[in-house]
Amino acid sequence: MGSAILPDLGAEILIPACAVVGLVFSLVQWYLVSKVKLSPAGEAQNNGKNGYTDYLIEEEEGATSFLFTEYQYVGIFMVAFAILIFLFLGSVEGFSTKSQPCTFDLTKLCKPALANAVFSTVSFLLGAVTSVVSGFLGMKIATYANARTTLEARKGVGKAFITAFRSGAVMGFLLAANGLLVLYIVINLFKLYYGDDWEGLFESITGYGLGGSSMALFGRVGGGIYTKAADVGADLVGKVERNIPEDDPRNPAVIADNVGDNVGDIAGMGSDLFGSYAESSCAALVVASISSFGINHELTPMLYPLIVSAVGIIVCLITTLFATDFFEIKAVKEIEPALKKQLIISTVLMTIALAIVSWVALPPSFTIFNFGTQKVVTNWQLFLCVAVGLWAGLIIGFVTEYYTSNAYSPVQDVADSCRTGAATNVIFGLALGYKSVIIPIFAIAVSIFVSFSFAAMYGIAVAALGMLSTIATGLAIDAYGPISDNAGGIAEMAGMSHRIRERTDALDAAGNTTAAIGKGFAIGSAALVSLALFGAFVSRANIETVDVLTPKVFIGLIVGAMLPYWFSAMTMKSVGSAALKMVEEVRRQFDTIPGLMEGTAKPDYATCVKISTDASIKEMIPPGALVMLTPLIVGIFFGVETLSGILAGSLVSGVQIAISASNTGGAWDNAKKYIEAGASEHARTLGPKGSDPHKAAVIGDTIGDPLKDTSGPSLNILIKLMAVESLVFAPFFATHGGLLFKIF
Amino acid sequence: MGSAILPDLGAEILIPACAVVGLVFSLVQWYLVSKVKLSPAGEAQNNGKNGYTDYLIEEEEGATSFLFTEYQYVGIFMVAFAILIFLFLGSVEGFSTKSQPCTFDLTKLCKPALANAVFSTVSFLLGAVTSVVSGFLGMKIATYANARTTLEARKGVGKAFITAFRSGAVMGFLLAANGLLVLYIVINLFKLYYGDDWEGLFESITGYGLGGSSMALFGRVGGGIYTKAADVGADLVGKVERNIPEDDPRNPAVIADNVGDNVGDIAGMGSDLFGSYAESSCAALVVASISSFGINHELTPMLYPLIVSAVGIIVCLITTLFATDFFEIKAVKEIEPALKKQLIISTVLMTIALAIVSWVALPPSFTIFNFGTQKVVTNWQLFLCVAVGLWAGLIIGFVTEYYTSNAYSPVQDVADSCRTGAATNVIFGLALGYKSVIIPIFAIAVSIFVSFSFAAMYGIAVAALGMLSTIATGLAIDAYGPISDNAGGIAEMAGMSHRIRERTDALDAAGNTTAAIGKGFAIGSAALVSLALFGAFVSRANIETVDVLTPKVFIGLIVGAMLPYWFSAMTMKSVGSAALKMVEEVRRQFDTIPGLMEGTAKPDYATCVKISTDASIKEMIPPGALVMLTPLIVGIFFGVETLSGILAGSLVSGVQIAISASNTGGAWDNAKKYIEAGASEHARTLGPKGSDPHKAAVIGDTIGDPLKDTSGPSLNILIKLMAVESLVFAPFFATHGGLLFKIF
Repeated sequence: MGSAILPDLGAEILIPACAVVGLVFSLVQWYLVSKVKLSPAGEAQNNGKNGYTDYLIEEEEGATSFLFTEYQYVGIFMVAFAILIFLFLGSVEGFSTKSQPCTFDLTKLCKPALANAVFSTVSFLLGAVTSVVSGFLGMKIATYANARTTLEARKGVGKAFITAFRSGAVMGFLLAANGLLVLYIVINLFKLYYGDDWEGLFESITGYGLGGSSMALFGRVGGGIYTKAADVGADLVGKVERNIPEDDPRNPAVIADNVGDNVGDIAGMGSDLFGSYAESSCAALVVASISSFGINHELTPMLYPLIVSAVGIIVCLITTLFATDFFEIKAVKEIEPALKKQLIISTVLMTIALAIVSWVALPPSFTIFNFGTQKVVTNWQLFLCVAVGLWAGLIIGFVTEYYTSNAYSPVQDVADSCRTGAATNVIFGLALGYKSVIIPIFAIAVSIFVSFSFAAMYGIAVAALGMLSTIATGLAIDAYGPISDNAGGIAEMAGMSHRIRERTDALDAAGNTTAAIGKGFAIGSAALVSLALFGAFVSRANIETVDVLTPKVFIGLIVGAMLPYWFSAMTMKSVGSAALKMVEEVRRQFDTIPGLMEGTAKPDYATCVKISTDASIKEMIPPGALVMLTPLIVGIFFGVETLSGILAGSLVSGVQIAISASNTGGAWDNAKKYIEAGASEHARTLGPKGSDPHKAAVIGDTIGDPLKDTSGPSLNILIKLMAVESLVFAPFFATHGGLLFKIF
Repeated sequence: MGSAILPDLGAEILIPACAVVGLVFSLVQWYLVSKVKLSPAGEAQNNGKNGYTDYLIEEEEGATSFLFTEYQYVGIFMVAFAILIFLFLGSVEGFSTKSQPCTFDLTKLCKPALANAVFSTVSFLLGAVTSVVSGFLGMKIATYANARTTLEARKGVGKAFITAFRSGAVMGFLLAANGLLVLYIVINLFKLYYGDDWEGLFESITGYGLGGSSMALFGRVGGGIYTKAADVGADLVGKVERNIPEDDPRNPAVIADNVGDNVGDIAGMGSDLFGSYAESSCAALVVASISSFGINHELTPMLYPLIVSAVGIIVCLITTLFATDFFEIKAVKEIEPALKKQLIISTVLMTIALAIVSWVALPPSFTIFNFGTQKVVTNWQLFLCVAVGLWAGLIIGFVTEYYTSNAYSPVQDVADSCRTGAATNVIFGLALGYKSVIIPIFAIAVSIFVSFSFAAMYGIAVAALGMLSTIATGLAIDAYGPISDNAGGIAEMAGMSHRIRERTDALDAAGNTTAAIGKGFAIGSAALVSLALFGAFVSRANIETVDVLTPKVFIGLIVGAMLPYWFSAMTMKSVGSAALKMVEEVRRQFDTIPGLMEGTAKPDYATCVKISTDASIKEMIPPGALVMLTPLIVGIFFGVETLSGILAGSLVSGVQIAISASNTGGAWDNAKKYIEAGASEHARTLGPKGSDPHKAAVIGDTIGDPLKDTSGPSLNILIKLMAVESLVFAPFFATHGGLLFKIF
């Protein structure tokens, strides 16, 4: 077996050091962005009819006030759920304070179940708070960056790109470094109590993933409903009925729309990817804790998952420099290749880094626990597991780009189908989304097969980590999208020249694609993470097979596959209803406020903000409850076998809907932009703005909004969250679950 | 254990007797329909500007010519696939003609694998031919009935309803009785060779299901593309651009549209339900052949599945009389309740009949084979299995009705969302479809759980049979829909009065709902059937567990869940592309044929018919190949475990998409009809025809067309067909499969 080359102290230093480097880099980027001054002088330079600073203030206030309202409700939930965790896990051994034999090493004594309950509760709360902070900081950075990107757009597309991308990087590195650092500190603090009981230690750490992900759920769903209610409402009256441009300041819903971009796409997405990261680390750690190095207390290999993430921060740092310093964007058409290069560079560098890390931080061979049996794994096999996840992520990214960028034929075909109206546009768009599922699923299947065959569930968990190891870059290019979108909005509101708006539109079109890529990553990693969590749950609940040929499992499988539909129905209907209310309000304002259309009177932005806020707070509860309660109800009444079926079913079904929904939406959005930009002969035959094909494209774009920004991205949280929740409650379900079958 | 009350001779007489009664009843209904005369006198009575007999002739010619073209291509496939079956199954024992020990009763000798190959091939061809004949006869009956329904509509809505419903009944009883009779005869003929080797006998019978279902696939896909290309093309130019009514004879695509209804909705659906019926019978028989009565050669309990179907014909016969003779429809609003009553009456009567059949045709208790173990089942337990399937079907029917009928709030909400345009209509419609999945899935899950727990895979198979036991009534109310639709078309083409069109529209609106109910039945039964086939496959391939926690199974599961998306992408894109061609042709004719809009010149219907024919023939091949080749490729290269995963994944994922697609489409169609009919205060605020909300509703309707009539209903064939194909090839895969894993 042997031991790792890197000494334990080295690992203990490397991890926080990398996290700190990431934090510092993030601050440097922030400093560079802040050098763009929003001075009154700057304002005077633009030829606008309105000052944009008012809008900025309203926007930031709207976002802050929404997030605080959201956090109030979510805070109540958090406390209630924390109590539930404590009670359920504490009850496993009847709140006994006596130590007990360990599950996987019967020769030793482990800490009592009550300790597990306490520490799981604490780590749950820590995960939740870290997630909330991540989302909030992301929002702050984005609102800070929006206007600066607009201002830089006056100097040229290259400058604007760098500002938007740097701002994305601030968020990416802050979140990645912060997530790693908090997790590292928590582990070290918990170790003070747990000592040698690593099994108990890493089991209670899983609460961190649960906390992170449950906040992400509310962030994604609440934020998603908020942003799309505002967006759909604004577009339906503004663009379709009143024929005023997107983001026109005369539109009463325009502030709500921009706020929505910040709270939904930025804060929600930040929480989401943080959750994925936390969960995949937790899944890897909990599985590792029962492997040979877990049982023999070899710290360096045990912390391998954290070392991968730590090294990933450094790799992403170097990658970022390629976009901001080594090369410069000069023309619009260079934007997408530059972003694509980010993906390639980070993947290639990370592969090399992973090879080194696997060589120094792992023993040449070790055994892992594989549903009742032991399996020998070598370090290069584990390297292949991580690498296959990483490269699967790249493939998913490229496929997503191909299907959602208007540089390629799929989106152009969708745009072309607008010739015959909205109906064919929708049919082609839906077909595109369905088709875009094929290759990502094969990529996921291959990485599952490789990593599962080499290292069972530990392999899956590290493959997920591999996909997320370049999370800082992923987040940077993902956050870049909504920042550019809002920069365009500000240009429009401030009445800047047509040329500037064109530049921000080009940034934004690339942003739609990168947003889709980011969602692709989020979904792909969610699939791997939730499978790893599922595996960890199965180990912890002492199940050795999940046999489809038993009725308990099969009904779980089919009902689980239904849950994503139920969830999507709720979220889409919520967006639809909230949008209807928004439409009525916007129409009312246009009808009753004299001088609004002429631009002489100011609309009542606050009412629209309130509609979005109220709707999203109210409407996020039922889908949230569905996701949070299903594992509890199934576990308690039907037991762990049916719950296993539910998890497998929702995983394999949810991944498909999530990918197709987010790609369909991205494609519609870019098909519309393709017609608007009119950059090719073909595009010009479909345009200009206001033509019949363009109107059809706008309808598609509007339908895509809830698909790509509400139901689609929330689904990956659904599959992860149900799995991590099952994992946390596994001891309880294994002991007290399956009431219904016990009674009958 | 004991033996059944009904002597073997009784069973041998009862089955064909019921089938013959069904055939006679079908002929009587035909005779009653044929009493409506399409005389020149009748023609003179109507105040039309055109004689409709010309259209009728063109319509029937178009349908016949399409079906013959389709059958030519499909015939080639059929022969090729028959050869494949023979070669693959023959190779299992190296084409040896020696008898071998039976798999499940080692004390006896069974017929050689070569015999199995020969008889499987023969039963495959028989199933294929029966399916083709079923579809063709259905089409003939429908074209015969269309105009007669229109004529009766002059006398009142009640008369028209009875004619349409009787015609549906002709088809329902003909198909049900024919399917049963052919199967019965085949079993008895095969028995002449097989003698006591029931295992081999019923294994080779599974080819019948494969033949039936593979023809159904091409029927559904080809017919679905045909009908929707024509429908979408006709609507986009006619209704949206030229503002002429639906089915106006000036529209060049109108004949293609009506032909499409007959070949897609009627012939395709007939083949589909015949396939389900054949497969569920085969699944039940093959599982039963290795149960205690199979091994002890007790004929009556062995034929229990056929007896259930036979008695079902009699029950449906009585049920039909309630619609046509015992009560009379007097007003439009009585149509839907009358159809609903059909479902209830048939289910209640069937439950009683099932109790009797289970009592007399089954021994008080018997053992069935349950993946390596024996399980004791009592006759009342098996009764519960069949009954739970039957009642689950009723629940699915009711839920479908609730979500697709414009008498209830879901469709009315969708109609209301048209106020804000097509985008909200689509969002609400998609959400409705997703939501409509919930209860049917629970119904399916409960029936799976109950029947699985009582009688393992045999329970599932008879539950599927229970759901299909009232197939004659199901087909009757399902075929009623397209017949009414075309009756409306003929009224329009013949320029009949507005009142008559209103009546046929009302019939048609109910028809949309019943079509959705029929699809619900088809999907629900497909889920059960394919699970039963899956179970039979697993038994036959000697697999004892399908463990999700093995990489081979899991990758199958996730890729299997992706296949319905791939398939839907293909079929929807096909409809879209064909519709675009149709649109261009229709536009060209309106632009270049002088006097077309004024009604003085006749359009060139034939070119449109040709476009639909060519497109559907060409485009049905890739999706057909996907479904037919996947089990072969996976079985040969990845082996039976991965194939099991594929089957389970495509089953649990496909069911959801199929239900949501068909309900979304049905709801959009009826939301449009709701606005057009203007029957309530609310509906009138949205109308009239041509208003903005109505235009938005038309867009939704058009999008729904490929969802509800092409991709949705084809999906249930996908899941069944892959399962039955795996079952037929199971011995080959078990012997020679999994090459890739053998090599590496």
